[in-house]
Amino acid sequence: MTHNVALNWKGKMHFESEGPGGKVLIDGAEEFGGEGKGVRPKAMMLSALAGCAGMDISSLLKKMRAEVAHFAIDVAGELTDEDPKFYKNVKVTFKFYDKEFNKKKIEKAVDLSVNRYCGVMEMFRQFANVTVAIEYIEE
Amino acid sequence: MTHNVALNWKGKMHFESEGPGGKVLIDGAEEFGGEGKGVRPKAMMLSALAGCAGMDISSLLKKMRAEVAHFAIDVAGELTDEDPKFYKNVKVTFKFYDKEFNKKKIEKAVDLSVNRYCGVMEMFRQFANVTVAIEYIEE
Repeated sequence: MTHNVALNWKGKMHFESEGPGGKVLIDGAEEFGGEGKGVRPKAMMLSALAGCAGMDISSLLKKMRAEVAHFAIDVAGELTDEDPKFYKNVKVTFKFYDKEFNKKKIEKAVDLSVNRYCGVMEMFRQFANVTVAIEYIEE
Repeated sequence: MTHNVALNWKGKMHFESEGPGGKVLIDGAEEFGGEGKGVRPKAMMLSALAGCAGMDISSLLKKMRAEVAHFAIDVAGELTDEDPKFYKNVKVTFKFYDKEFNKKKIEKAVDLSVNRYCGVMEMFRQFANVTVAIEYIEE
């Protein structure tokens, strides 16, 4: 299977990307000549990582009958100092919100996503040290 | 420098990602339980690659006084067959549109982006075979 994305220049650092599922507006930070009309391309990699893992978690918790009231995923990507700057250390924090939790199943779901299913995670492992944390927030 | 992204689950396969430059809505394809409310996370990697290279090209062509009327970047990412599916072959096609071109400077700009500046390209090289093509469209 092949995915295709088409990027069109809209002037200066502004671009429109069209791909599976729709369009994304991209722009640079103001200090690099951008005008704040869209997201930064490099950080889209972190969104892709979170989204990929998030879809696994949503699907797996449902299959395992271990659904939670809410969950969120934070990703922090530390860049190298030298060009070409890439993410060398990446921390992914899975945050689960509910009154009580089936922690064993939740940890199994996170493990399956991180180590077996999430293709974006597999790509990140080739260039970054990826660490994973789980937080439970009772509410 | 560290970039931070926060992903929030909106139900089923739908997520809202908030990071540098704004929000992106993410959703799965309908055959995988999605509802078409956003872009696919894996393909966001290809948008990130195109956007990163696009910003270099915009900036470099301006510095080199070799600006073009328009340019676009197509990215085709071929996935592996087995889970975790990742992009094993990636083709990036730079398309330049104008009446005439300073091809030497344009090729220099593409080379500098691909081989020196674009951090997303550097990350892709760690897991994919990346090929690059340049097309000139006279109009």
